[in-house]
Amino acid sequence: MSDVNDVTVGHAELIRELVSGERRFHALPAGLTADEAASIRRMALEQRLGVDLSKTGDYGLDAEVAANRHCENMIGATQIPLGVAGPIVVRGQYAKGDFYVPLATTEGALIASINRGCMAIRAAGGAVVDVEDVGITRAPVFKTSGLEQTRALLDWVEANEAEMRRVAEATSRYLRLLDVRTYAIGTTVFLRFRFSSGDAMGMNMATIACDRVVRELVEPATGVACVALSGNYCVDKKPSAVNFQHGRGKRLRAEVVLDADVLRKLKTTAAQLIEVQYRKNLIGSIAAGSIGYNAHFANVLAAFFLATGQDPAHVAEASMGVTTIEAHGEGGVIASVFLPDTPVAAIGGGTGLDTQREALAILGVVPEPGRPGAAALHLAEILAATVLAGEISLMAAFTSQDLAAAHERLGRSRRD
Amino acid sequence: MSDVNDVTVGHAELIRELVSGERRFHALPAGLTADEAASIRRMALEQRLGVDLSKTGDYGLDAEVAANRHCENMIGATQIPLGVAGPIVVRGQYAKGDFYVPLATTEGALIASINRGCMAIRAAGGAVVDVEDVGITRAPVFKTSGLEQTRALLDWVEANEAEMRRVAEATSRYLRLLDVRTYAIGTTVFLRFRFSSGDAMGMNMATIACDRVVRELVEPATGVACVALSGNYCVDKKPSAVNFQHGRGKRLRAEVVLDADVLRKLKTTAAQLIEVQYRKNLIGSIAAGSIGYNAHFANVLAAFFLATGQDPAHVAEASMGVTTIEAHGEGGVIASVFLPDTPVAAIGGGTGLDTQREALAILGVVPEPGRPGAAALHLAEILAATVLAGEISLMAAFTSQDLAAAHERLGRSRRD
Amino acid sequence: MSDVNDVTVGHAELIRELVSGERRFHALPAGLTADEAASIRRMALEQRLGVDLSKTGDYGLDAEVAANRHCENMIGATQIPLGVAGPIVVRGQYAKGDFYVPLATTEGALIASINRGCMAIRAAGGAVVDVEDVGITRAPVFKTSGLEQTRALLDWVEANEAEMRRVAEATSRYLRLLDVRTYAIGTTVFLRFRFSSGDAMGMNMATIACDRVVRELVEPATGVACVALSGNYCVDKKPSAVNFQHGRGKRLRAEVVLDADVLRKLKTTAAQLIEVQYRKNLIGSIAAGSIGYNAHFANVLAAFFLATGQDPAHVAEASMGVTTIEAHGEGGVIASVFLPDTPVAAIGGGTGLDTQREALAILGVVPEPGRPGAAALHLAEILAATVLAGEISLMAAFTSQDLAAAHERLGRSRRD
Amino acid sequence: MSDVNDVTVGHAELIRELVSGERRFHALPAGLTADEAASIRRMALEQRLGVDLSKTGDYGLDAEVAANRHCENMIGATQIPLGVAGPIVVRGQYAKGDFYVPLATTEGALIASINRGCMAIRAAGGAVVDVEDVGITRAPVFKTSGLEQTRALLDWVEANEAEMRRVAEATSRYLRLLDVRTYAIGTTVFLRFRFSSGDAMGMNMATIACDRVVRELVEPATGVACVALSGNYCVDKKPSAVNFQHGRGKRLRAEVVLDADVLRKLKTTAAQLIEVQYRKNLIGSIAAGSIGYNAHFANVLAAFFLATGQDPAHVAEASMGVTTIEAHGEGGVIASVFLPDTPVAAIGGGTGLDTQREALAILGVVPEPGRPGAAALHLAEILAATVLAGEISLMAAFTSQDLAAAHERLGRSRRD
Repeated sequence: MSDVNDVTVGHAELIRELVSGERRFHALPAGLTADEAASIRRMALEQRLGVDLSKTGDYGLDAEVAANRHCENMIGATQIPLGVAGPIVVRGQYAKGDFYVPLATTEGALIASINRGCMAIRAAGGAVVDVEDVGITRAPVFKTSGLEQTRALLDWVEANEAEMRRVAEATSRYLRLLDVRTYAIGTTVFLRFRFSSGDAMGMNMATIACDRVVRELVEPATGVACVALSGNYCVDKKPSAVNFQHGRGKRLRAEVVLDADVLRKLKTTAAQLIEVQYRKNLIGSIAAGSIGYNAHFANVLAAFFLATGQDPAHVAEASMGVTTIEAHGEGGVIASVFLPDTPVAAIGGGTGLDTQREALAILGVVPEPGRPGAAALHLAEILAATVLAGEISLMAAFTSQDLAAAHERLGRSRRD
Repeated sequence: MSDVNDVTVGHAELIRELVSGERRFHALPAGLTADEAASIRRMALEQRLGVDLSKTGDYGLDAEVAANRHCENMIGATQIPLGVAGPIVVRGQYAKGDFYVPLATTEGALIASINRGCMAIRAAGGAVVDVEDVGITRAPVFKTSGLEQTRALLDWVEANEAEMRRVAEATSRYLRLLDVRTYAIGTTVFLRFRFSSGDAMGMNMATIACDRVVRELVEPATGVACVALSGNYCVDKKPSAVNFQHGRGKRLRAEVVLDADVLRKLKTTAAQLIEVQYRKNLIGSIAAGSIGYNAHFANVLAAFFLATGQDPAHVAEASMGVTTIEAHGEGGVIASVFLPDTPVAAIGGGTGLDTQREALAILGVVPEPGRPGAAALHLAEILAATVLAGEISLMAAFTSQDLAAAHERLGRSRRD
Repeated sequence: MSDVNDVTVGHAELIRELVSGERRFHALPAGLTADEAASIRRMALEQRLGVDLSKTGDYGLDAEVAANRHCENMIGATQIPLGVAGPIVVRGQYAKGDFYVPLATTEGALIASINRGCMAIRAAGGAVVDVEDVGITRAPVFKTSGLEQTRALLDWVEANEAEMRRVAEATSRYLRLLDVRTYAIGTTVFLRFRFSSGDAMGMNMATIACDRVVRELVEPATGVACVALSGNYCVDKKPSAVNFQHGRGKRLRAEVVLDADVLRKLKTTAAQLIEVQYRKNLIGSIAAGSIGYNAHFANVLAAFFLATGQDPAHVAEASMGVTTIEAHGEGGVIASVFLPDTPVAAIGGGTGLDTQREALAILGVVPEPGRPGAAALHLAEILAATVLAGEISLMAAFTSQDLAAAHERLGRSRRD
Repeated sequence: MSDVNDVTVGHAELIRELVSGERRFHALPAGLTADEAASIRRMALEQRLGVDLSKTGDYGLDAEVAANRHCENMIGATQIPLGVAGPIVVRGQYAKGDFYVPLATTEGALIASINRGCMAIRAAGGAVVDVEDVGITRAPVFKTSGLEQTRALLDWVEANEAEMRRVAEATSRYLRLLDVRTYAIGTTVFLRFRFSSGDAMGMNMATIACDRVVRELVEPATGVACVALSGNYCVDKKPSAVNFQHGRGKRLRAEVVLDADVLRKLKTTAAQLIEVQYRKNLIGSIAAGSIGYNAHFANVLAAFFLATGQDPAHVAEASMGVTTIEAHGEGGVIASVFLPDTPVAAIGGGTGLDTQREALAILGVVPEPGRPGAAALHLAEILAATVLAGEISLMAAFTSQDLAAAHERLGRSRRD
């Protein structure tokens, strides 16, 4: 009985200490459950700031998992509305058939729009997808004494890739070192290690492996110091030419042929779609100096990433890419999307959280020990098709809302 | 009594229709509550796919709001763990003092790392911030008959900015047309309208205003057809040179001087920080061809955006920017971040959702009718300081984990 | 008589000293003529290296002018073959009518190719051109003590543009300060001054004016030190986003409509041209991450620049730009070129050299004191049309040599 | 006797026809010498335009060579003043020792400036250079029917590189196919062939080889049509990310350590040089969105290219690259240049012209049949050192003219 009281008193005291600043938020006693700790922090904030955090505390996720693996100083959960689009028909190597696509978003009309694209793709017999497992990359940066040591380091790397592979792959049975790409400017040298990482996104595994290779092999053998394990030639979570050229994570391609009938359902025509594609996605992005030659990859990626436990910061690099729409047959088009740099995972990171795990289940993503990487590729194939659905739909909307209407207003025939 | 049964029967029938595909997910009867509709969709998916969506249904948000404004085909909510970092000390024009920063993330160690940066900033007396309200942009794209009409259109725009302002600003009392920037390539012309939009992010308001200006003014007056209201010279949700040059949303700057004592607490030195900054954030991003000369803006932006109801797709453009670290005084550094393109809102979009609203309350974000825009600037100032905290902390971690360790292993003094 | 011998002896002695290294090449006595000095240096090199420089000495240019204004340590002249293309028909504001275009090149087939483009343009009634005098830019870079001083500097600049204009324009009666664009990152601030400079390219005038403004006004008034008069935000002789966005020198546009008859003479069709344009100039440059969305601007620019005394290093920035080819009418196309950043001059720099001056005469470039800038715009208009001719011709060549041939070999109809 | 008259009459008649437009400039009779033809064209232009082209006709080059191989419609030659800088001390694999560097330029002070850099390098014991023979590239572009054919084509290429090598290398005994890099977006596929080409720049050889491979092998085997032999993924004569990442032509690196004594001679200090380097070449180019992180590569390249018969249009791509200046030892710096994409030749192109051949002789460039490629690498090594000399000198000038002066004016010590 007194225990209960003690605990109660204890919580109140902790809250007081947090409010007063005597105790830091990350310095709560170890014995508390994650729920208790979150509750104490919430109450402290409520008292200190005069705010109400009841909705933040009204969560359903497993706080122990969340607080231990994902989120320090946890106070609760942010809730993002989750809807479904589809079914989308995917003709991939791993994902074949119909899929409902879970999407977490706060942007009204986004899911409806993607859904319209899914319908078009379904009417067209599905999206052909082609996903390459490029691999995750990490590029430690080294400082040499000058050109001669730089040359020696580059030569050493070329001669010792097998040895680096041995050390790297000893750190995880899911990791394979695919290659090492070097880049040298002045006294600075980057070694960009590229790994396949099974169903995991792989950033952590890659970092651990690089650390081992650098400390056990590169530094002792060459005498060149590593300045930082991540030298921004990786490149993680930034748009970049190197990732556009070489890919990163998965490289996605999806394609669909929409004939005149399907285009009619989308209230558009081939000529109109091609016109908007040309002025907006090509000339517009050229004028803007943007590496995103597309309508709104980022919207679809963000909603899909959030729903399925991917890292939303990866939208920064994944949103690079190109949409194409070309004339095909009589009044039809062939449309495609190309995303060179899409890190995704079927295990690890946010994929293990409760609601995210359920979203993955909706997509049929089931990692199988005997087929490492297959589940992530299955996921990536559906993502590729979904991005395509988003592009088709938004592009068609532009034609019907803007282009066609303009022609009407200006009294023109719709010949262009 | 039979009503209850009827309803029950009704739900079961709806579920059956969804499962069989007779009925589409967005075609549920109008009379259902949002909770009922979400439940029916969940049950249909569970039956059809053999999955368990109980956690998805265990949400606390107001489903009516979410389903009506944010998310079609809603089935529940995704839950992202929410923690707090700080307090961070902000020396802004709008945000002054200590702030706890809510961050929604699944990436373990991120909040702890940002927290470390907040401590350093606090020890240094706070971060100086400077936020400019650049404004939101939208760039309709037009097709002319050739150079002569292009010239005429450009001249017309230059001569009629006041008239366009009148029409644009009539669509919302919170919108101000700041200027119109033109760009012309061949027969393609872009008019990039830039608006201030008070506390809203402004994309929707801008689109509505552009639509009105285009249809009522530009097209009738010039006879030139608008091909799409968004011509990718805006540029929304894509990294781009035009936004880097001109800014978009808010342009953020934050800065802090860390003396030798504070650096010691971060287990680093000025020389080490400057070394990593140079090799990684400058030479590394140059080698990579990245427009992100920073360590991990995207991580902080994504966590902050999710917590506070911003659009996570905007990470694609907001993650551009530059971190600097320079020597200062005796053994100290002056560190800064520059983010030219950060669309944020204090009202509208996801900011109205339950948990997001609570996060904004933690930050003291309170829109005031008499000071439109002040709440969003308050928010942006704290964001700028938080990004700076994230950079400082991660950069210091590289020096202590990699650089210093390398020197030790290689038996060198820590002079460089 | 002995004088002559003395001089002869003197030359031999000078040569000996150069050969032995006792005397440096730039340290010849002041009394020598430029021809004598060049001859002495040639002979010294011939003796020292055992080479024959007779052709280098067989020049026709005025050595006094060349050695005093253009070229230190002069030893002679490099000779580049000069040919003419055209006449090209230009429909500009300054250049109207037929023009033969002098081009200096060593690349066989280049002039023939441009000539073919000129014929097509002539057959089409001429090229419409539109040239804007954007102005030359120079951007000193400053170092501030931090954000607060940065803000103060930016505010000062905004408030004192008129005063800066007064000081700048006092340095030359041909210079007009158009505006000052600022950019600030951390403690670094750039002031990008933009000037109109009449018929001169203007870089030297701009530098002198900036120097005066910085020393007399900005530094004393703000206490902020200028680190370098050219801070690379100018940007001179480098491809860059800022110049692509804002232009530099002249911004060129040229356009021509080629109907089916003209295309037939070029042995191509609208469909083929559009196909190559799409795959090569758009998708190809997108894939390459190139800011040059064209076939070979650089070739035409280099040959034109050399012939007319422009600075060939400006090819680095002038080669940015976009070619477009779109369907027009029945079986025709409308083709255009866009070059945002083309510094050119009608006076100053290499334009005063003998052969270059003659080339300018061929083009009818005649600076008139009463119309400063008109001669340079006249020149730029012809250049724009010539670049267009080069694009049309090379693109047509691809279609007839590659695309059409491929279709034949693969047994396809030429429908695409 | 009458023959002579006939010829005279003939010339006059030809001139009349050219003037009247009855005859085109490229349609002169075959029997004329190149000198005669040039003279006739000049006289026609003189009459038609009322200009004087006597200097253009006062050339020393071998007109037969120039007119047949380099320049259609030749009318004479452009003369560019030629000077020498140096000697520069080069510590390369091919170029070892002292070299005078011929530079053709019209930009006053350029050679003097480069010369100052040469002196500094000489005082420092020479520039270490490291040149890689990356190889010349050509990328035909193909159009497939869709993703499935794209995948088949990519797979075919991967499986048939040896066969393509056999066909390519049969076209020239100097050509080696190094590898084939593919890139695919939608229905567009690029095959980027990379060749070593001995002492030639190699573009023509590469084009011929690609043509053969495409027509004999790729098209017949895959049924996929080549749209253009050059698909802009090569990338020739355009700045680009792909060339920055992979290199093209030669990849140049040069480096020198300048101690405090040498810096004193340059009237600068390590601290000042590092300051200007940071603000201008790094932050300035970042702000500008330029791929040229250097002071003036283009100036040195253009002057060197012109003097030695390289293609000046290649300045467009060669001017990409990075200069670094870092602290070294007590008051010294280590400076370097990195040029990833520098196509140069020792034979072919303009290298065979009279004055250009003499300039190559000054540099000791002598192709040896038994060491193909060695002469071009020798040339490239000297170029690398010369570019470094240009950077050092200009950067030092900024410090003494701007930075140091600013400090004086502002009454500051020169501590930064």
